[in-house]
Amino acid sequence: MTTPSIPQSTGGPFSGEQEPGVKTPPIETTGFQFNHTMLRIKDPEISLAFYTGIMGMTLLRKLDFPEFQFSLYFLAQLDDQEQVPQETHDRTVWTFAQRGILELTHNWGTEQQADFAYHDGNAEPQGFGHICFSVPDFDAAIAWFDQQGVDYVKRPEDGKMRNVAFIRDADGYWIEIVQADRLATIG
Amino acid sequence: MTTPSIPQSTGGPFSGEQEPGVKTPPIETTGFQFNHTMLRIKDPEISLAFYTGIMGMTLLRKLDFPEFQFSLYFLAQLDDQEQVPQETHDRTVWTFAQRGILELTHNWGTEQQADFAYHDGNAEPQGFGHICFSVPDFDAAIAWFDQQGVDYVKRPEDGKMRNVAFIRDADGYWIEIVQADRLATIG
Repeated sequence: MTTPSIPQSTGGPFSGEQEPGVKTPPIETTGFQFNHTMLRIKDPEISLAFYTGIMGMTLLRKLDFPEFQFSLYFLAQLDDQEQVPQETHDRTVWTFAQRGILELTHNWGTEQQADFAYHDGNAEPQGFGHICFSVPDFDAAIAWFDQQGVDYVKRPEDGKMRNVAFIRDADGYWIEIVQADRLATIG
Repeated sequence: MTTPSIPQSTGGPFSGEQEPGVKTPPIETTGFQFNHTMLRIKDPEISLAFYTGIMGMTLLRKLDFPEFQFSLYFLAQLDDQEQVPQETHDRTVWTFAQRGILELTHNWGTEQQADFAYHDGNAEPQGFGHICFSVPDFDAAIAWFDQQGVDYVKRPEDGKMRNVAFIRDADGYWIEIVQADRLATIG
């Protein structure tokens, strides 16, 4: 995904901001990349409807593990340029070589337990905070979420940061919504 | 990051696996992308040393919010082709337009509390599970982690899946380690 407003580099390679603890990436880590984030979900039908039908992701692979009674769902937003292999095994390999993949884990049967819910990480005990989707047009995205009846943690007009919103996914996990070129002067 | 072993597509665009709930990405979601995952950390010096010096990430931006007593750190693995803007505001915009960014949140002072710890999401109450880094050479990566004294949740030789490992970051969050082209027949 490229957006016309994304600035281009000037000068040599960027070597990182310096803070206590920061080290130069060792040669042994060449090619490491942040492939996916895994969240547990209660009901795959509801979560898949949310992440595909509202957040625009595509289901790349479903993996079933009957022996352990769970299934994994791997999703990503695809752009027109992305060449996803049709053949299943090739597509699995392709999926694990990308960035920005969302993995949803369904432990079978939780969808039938009325009082079952996962922990969002923002109530105590805290840990994981949120995932973030950047969008090309923040206002249009908010109008879309409103039209879809999405639940908000923070609407744009709440608090000081008018260019940041937080919505909830089907399990209550927080999703931050931003438009990159509106955040130049943040922090 | 491109790896020679990643399969290329054959045929038309991939439209996704079909499962109950799955919908075609609506036109309103064009350009949405999964930008980052946020994890809270106790001590930035320790976490930055881990994610840069052991996991090969680069600190793209630190954002301070003195009024609210917290700082944010945005990191990514960069490859040689990536042109990161040197200018700070441009770099912020660039960061929010990428995929595969890790955001670490530090609430000031937690590093001085001996008994302070965040929740990893895998003990109860469950929710978030892990992040995953794919590596070009699984065996070499494991040797590297061993050399660095990294803590394991699951070593390659534990359990049935010899091509998957889980390590712990500085706060105990789980990081899955995989090599994409070894996972063709998983699930």
